[in-house]
Amino acid sequence: MSTILSQLPHPVSLRWTEEGLQLLDQRRLPLETSYITCRSPQVVRDAIVTLAVRGAPAIGIAAAYGLYLGIRHLPDTDTDGFWQTLQRTAADLRSARPTAVNLVWALDRVLLRAETDRNLPLSQLKTHILEEAQAIQQEDAALCRQIGENFLPLLHDGMGILTHCNAGGLATAAYGTALAPLYLAKEKGWNIHVYADETRPVLQGSRLTAYELQQAGIDVTLICDNMAGHMMQQGKIQAVIVGTDRVAANGDVANKIGTYSLAVLAKAHHIPFYIAAPTPSIDRNTPTGDDIPIEERDAAEITHGWNTATAPPGVNVYNPAFDVTPANLITAIVTEYGVIKPPYLEAIAALPTFKR
Amino acid sequence: MSTILSQLPHPVSLRWTEEGLQLLDQRRLPLETSYITCRSPQVVRDAIVTLAVRGAPAIGIAAAYGLYLGIRHLPDTDTDGFWQTLQRTAADLRSARPTAVNLVWALDRVLLRAETDRNLPLSQLKTHILEEAQAIQQEDAALCRQIGENFLPLLHDGMGILTHCNAGGLATAAYGTALAPLYLAKEKGWNIHVYADETRPVLQGSRLTAYELQQAGIDVTLICDNMAGHMMQQGKIQAVIVGTDRVAANGDVANKIGTYSLAVLAKAHHIPFYIAAPTPSIDRNTPTGDDIPIEERDAAEITHGWNTATAPPGVNVYNPAFDVTPANLITAIVTEYGVIKPPYLEAIAALPTFKR
Repeated sequence: MSTILSQLPHPVSLRWTEEGLQLLDQRRLPLETSYITCRSPQVVRDAIVTLAVRGAPAIGIAAAYGLYLGIRHLPDTDTDGFWQTLQRTAADLRSARPTAVNLVWALDRVLLRAETDRNLPLSQLKTHILEEAQAIQQEDAALCRQIGENFLPLLHDGMGILTHCNAGGLATAAYGTALAPLYLAKEKGWNIHVYADETRPVLQGSRLTAYELQQAGIDVTLICDNMAGHMMQQGKIQAVIVGTDRVAANGDVANKIGTYSLAVLAKAHHIPFYIAAPTPSIDRNTPTGDDIPIEERDAAEITHGWNTATAPPGVNVYNPAFDVTPANLITAIVTEYGVIKPPYLEAIAALPTFKR
Repeated sequence: MSTILSQLPHPVSLRWTEEGLQLLDQRRLPLETSYITCRSPQVVRDAIVTLAVRGAPAIGIAAAYGLYLGIRHLPDTDTDGFWQTLQRTAADLRSARPTAVNLVWALDRVLLRAETDRNLPLSQLKTHILEEAQAIQQEDAALCRQIGENFLPLLHDGMGILTHCNAGGLATAAYGTALAPLYLAKEKGWNIHVYADETRPVLQGSRLTAYELQQAGIDVTLICDNMAGHMMQQGKIQAVIVGTDRVAANGDVANKIGTYSLAVLAKAHHIPFYIAAPTPSIDRNTPTGDDIPIEERDAAEITHGWNTATAPPGVNVYNPAFDVTPANLITAIVTEYGVIKPPYLEAIAALPTFKR
């Protein structure tokens, strides 16, 4: 599995070195590729809070390494001090992004490993904690790569593929979810033309997706969100692939605002519309899309992009972060376990349970 | 007709005063409402070139007044000097925006009036030139208002209406085309909820449409282009109204990029999709939308909005300024002569010919 992380097609979001955890500073994208070296959990926490690292899987991995950094240089003789520091560091990291499920999950997983091995000498226990962080990272890369593999039979050489927002390597250990098949297609020597929506208001498509695909040498063309229909009308798009924030039990999908419009447009043009969804994103406790709350974000994201006022002061703004695409517009949902197709209720119920 | 211009619901794009032509400086929108006073044709020309005034009808009107400013203070005794200056001024103004049809049309109309009245005393001829400019302005306002009137039977109190880009009062003498029915609905006391797409990349929706509707006290909510489908899904939109750059003989419509996507989304949600089209925009010499060339604009509009690089350097960009909405997605085209419905080929052929 380590070969996955040593042969990445794109700049890696995070990497462990003897010096510490190196994080790609995503605040400086797309203009500058630079890494922050985190030698303490405080620096990791700060990177999470300030969005130097973002994307649920990447945040979880960063936090797991952060926990190791907190106990790495403690004396191997002070058992009480070790456990106190471990718990305190975990609590600190956990509060960095209160709603990030992966963050809590990754920290709990490392703590469980420590508990399991609590009778080992501290020096060995520390090594196991590092190994657990590395395992989380490698498993995430492997999961993303498997999603990419599972996509390939749905795709073919020469296609035009539209994507939205960033469900890419930058948000995960490697490959991403929606972008994984594009990296694997490139490995196979396919010539895929990718169209990346800039994804207003925060422009993750232009700042992140266009960046990572360009860095990987994949043919990517940036468009404004409102151009997607025109590209379909022109026959440039043969598939749409996007990620997801949450899949409901019936196959309804919440994802970045604009996804629903793309699904309607794809259907009108008879273009398949695919969701890349690791099983941790599938929530069988959410019956339908109607049960997914839509976060409304700050108006300034729309009225003051890049510190410039682009709208009249005081204008009403509606800024939903997500929308819900009903299952009937979705051609297939691709997970690490394979491709699921309608009827989704049965297919999702039959998936293995994610061990969280 | 002068009452139209004296009781405008929104800041007027241009107004004639004894001092000269006052132009709303649209470069300072949406943050500042200020007028430039043009006392010479050179200042008018500069305002056209630098987009202080924009919108085909408004440019034509400004140029007509510019022509008057060029001869206003000439001695009433030098007939040769008068005609030389008139022709030179017209040529200067004509070159301000080479592709603006209304600019050429308005100047030719004023020159024709001068030619017709060439045997009158110069003092009287000057007055007729001013009157011709005023007539062009008033006729444009009346035309726009008539489009608004013709729309009203299609609309009703309490509706949510989506618009795209700016086909508003700022682009015309008054009322605009797509926005005219909104102003008239307000006059009637209707409570209309307008949703304005910000309209990437140049944001005419947020900078201009949101501004003029807000100034007029109309309930307007700004959204990103990619939110339109979500708003329709939520049941907030009961009609879409947009302007047009050109209508082909078969009813296909070229308009700002993103219009086609809205038309597809409207159809999928069973929402009527209306085009506001003054007959000068209807080109019977263009058989279908396929015959309308799509202007491709500078990549920097997408990659460097807000004077900030928002995309990786050197990334491929596609930036079409317009798209074409096929006639079969259009519920009705509303002109100053009335509402036309499918089949458009016959309905358009039956329209009065615009006397240009």
